[in-house]
Amino acid sequence: MPRVADLPTPALVIDATALTHNLDTMSAALPGARLRPHVKAHKCTSLAREQLARGHRTFTCATPREVLGMARAGFVDDLLLANETVDDERLRAMARCDARVTVAVDSDATVAAAAGSGIREVLVDVNVGLPRCGCPPEAAVDIADKARAAGMQVRGVMGYEGHVVGLADRRERSAKTDDSMKQLAFAHGLVGGEVISAGGTGTFDINDVANEIQAGSYALMDTAYAKLGLPFRHALRVVATVVHANDRYAVADCGLKALGMDHGNPSIDAGEVWFCSDEHITFALATRPRVGDRVLVVPAHVDPTVAYHDAMHIAAGAGIDAEITDSWPVDLRGW
Amino acid sequence: MPRVADLPTPALVIDATALTHNLDTMSAALPGARLRPHVKAHKCTSLAREQLARGHRTFTCATPREVLGMARAGFVDDLLLANETVDDERLRAMARCDARVTVAVDSDATVAAAAGSGIREVLVDVNVGLPRCGCPPEAAVDIADKARAAGMQVRGVMGYEGHVVGLADRRERSAKTDDSMKQLAFAHGLVGGEVISAGGTGTFDINDVANEIQAGSYALMDTAYAKLGLPFRHALRVVATVVHANDRYAVADCGLKALGMDHGNPSIDAGEVWFCSDEHITFALATRPRVGDRVLVVPAHVDPTVAYHDAMHIAAGAGIDAEITDSWPVDLRGW
Repeated sequence: MPRVADLPTPALVIDATALTHNLDTMSAALPGARLRPHVKAHKCTSLAREQLARGHRTFTCATPREVLGMARAGFVDDLLLANETVDDERLRAMARCDARVTVAVDSDATVAAAAGSGIREVLVDVNVGLPRCGCPPEAAVDIADKARAAGMQVRGVMGYEGHVVGLADRRERSAKTDDSMKQLAFAHGLVGGEVISAGGTGTFDINDVANEIQAGSYALMDTAYAKLGLPFRHALRVVATVVHANDRYAVADCGLKALGMDHGNPSIDAGEVWFCSDEHITFALATRPRVGDRVLVVPAHVDPTVAYHDAMHIAAGAGIDAEITDSWPVDLRGW
Repeated sequence: MPRVADLPTPALVIDATALTHNLDTMSAALPGARLRPHVKAHKCTSLAREQLARGHRTFTCATPREVLGMARAGFVDDLLLANETVDDERLRAMARCDARVTVAVDSDATVAAAAGSGIREVLVDVNVGLPRCGCPPEAAVDIADKARAAGMQVRGVMGYEGHVVGLADRRERSAKTDDSMKQLAFAHGLVGGEVISAGGTGTFDINDVANEIQAGSYALMDTAYAKLGLPFRHALRVVATVVHANDRYAVADCGLKALGMDHGNPSIDAGEVWFCSDEHITFALATRPRVGDRVLVVPAHVDPTVAYHDAMHIAAGAGIDAEITDSWPVDLRGW
């Protein structure tokens, strides 16, 4: 059996024990359709199958490619594009695909594009405080009316409290989630429908207004979310090879093109990361490593890290000696 | 003919006029083998062909995948892996491939790995101030001796002044390049060989010790290098579609997974970028755009931006109405 240390580097490695813990913990807290797992963090139908195996049959996607890839995988029948698009070709492909597809709309233009491309079901996306997509709560009824007039079914509302999910103080996170969800509940009162979709890993056990939570990061976790004291563990690391070592620092082959950097530098256990360049990470360890040694790098932000890689390798444990039991293609990349 | 505004978004777009200007300007300054173009920024054999067409037949690579992809493309015969690796399988593949391949070595371990895998030619990589790979200048002769003893030819030295290339003040950049190159010249005096390889876009007309300059960013440019007053123009943008607009801001479909973020936020002409999330950029424009409008996003750092995309589309001009004349696969991604 190959081990983590045998992989060509840099390579994504999933600690199966941590992943199982994370998936089981979330499924216990939010069983079945109470969770609509977001695939954007892992972009991997094999990992989605693990979520399915724990009873989740509805999924959230951020891009048409994710929707189409999940539909092609053939094991779910309710996919939400929790995002706006006016791309006629992609909307038509989603309308034609072999799954129930619901898309988010928040304007006359997105309603018209969805209806014109044959989309049958929508959620009204409501802005609940994050300066991104979503209509004002009071405008939701107008959007819903226009969607219905265009022949689409309005299944309800969604509204992502993305400005809140990362707040370190739980009380503050909770209070601001309540503020956001009051707006979503208000919009839902106007729009109707059976779906109130919201939430993320940081609010999975706080948001009690949404009847489905769109969490995704919990499966693999990253260093930003780890500060919140959530019951999920780091399951994703990048294994790298030391290619240079001297008395001051070492260099391994895991750089900017193997890591999402928007949340800052990654971390290395028992090491101090100095900086990353295109193909390198420069860091100091208490004990000087040898050229050829493997190190495990914990990305600060999982989502854009995974999006650089072709595959995730499944390891029976967290260390570099753990056996690789499987490799999953990152098959939902792109748009 | 399709136009930039017809592309599915997000998509990389090259302004052919700016690219031609950049390539011609650099070739005039550093003709033929005086430039060893670095492929790491563009990762594209089609773009490398444009460099070849201007007389450059030697290329620099950062990864074995780049070396092997360039060798497979079949139009160059001198490829430098300006980076260390101890990956036996990848070293063997480079040793076997249909091109002259030289690899950087900086330690006993990297010499042993190269020699053991059948690599025939090396450069001694010298640390000239950047805390990354490279041996101390005074150690270069020992590395060279060991490489020769292992049966490899030592073609000379390389040393990248990466801590200097981005300094905004030209006088400071120049003085610090001189300091670095004194160390490289010292090492070269010990090691011998015909190659002194160094430099980048920020020092292409400053570094007069290196007899070949490893510049790569000049072809496409990015906002970081643009501050240096270099004679190169932004040639790469990401075209995105506005999916939401209100009185305060707009949102387009170009996020963290379409942009290298280590140099900070991208920019938008005549706009103020607020922030990027996984699939979105939130920004303000003087005039409120309409949903469906295209915007052109200038990435802060080209290299990790290109590495997210499958293709670069060639446009006959800089605007969203420019015609698309070709599409080039980004075929050198990965490791």
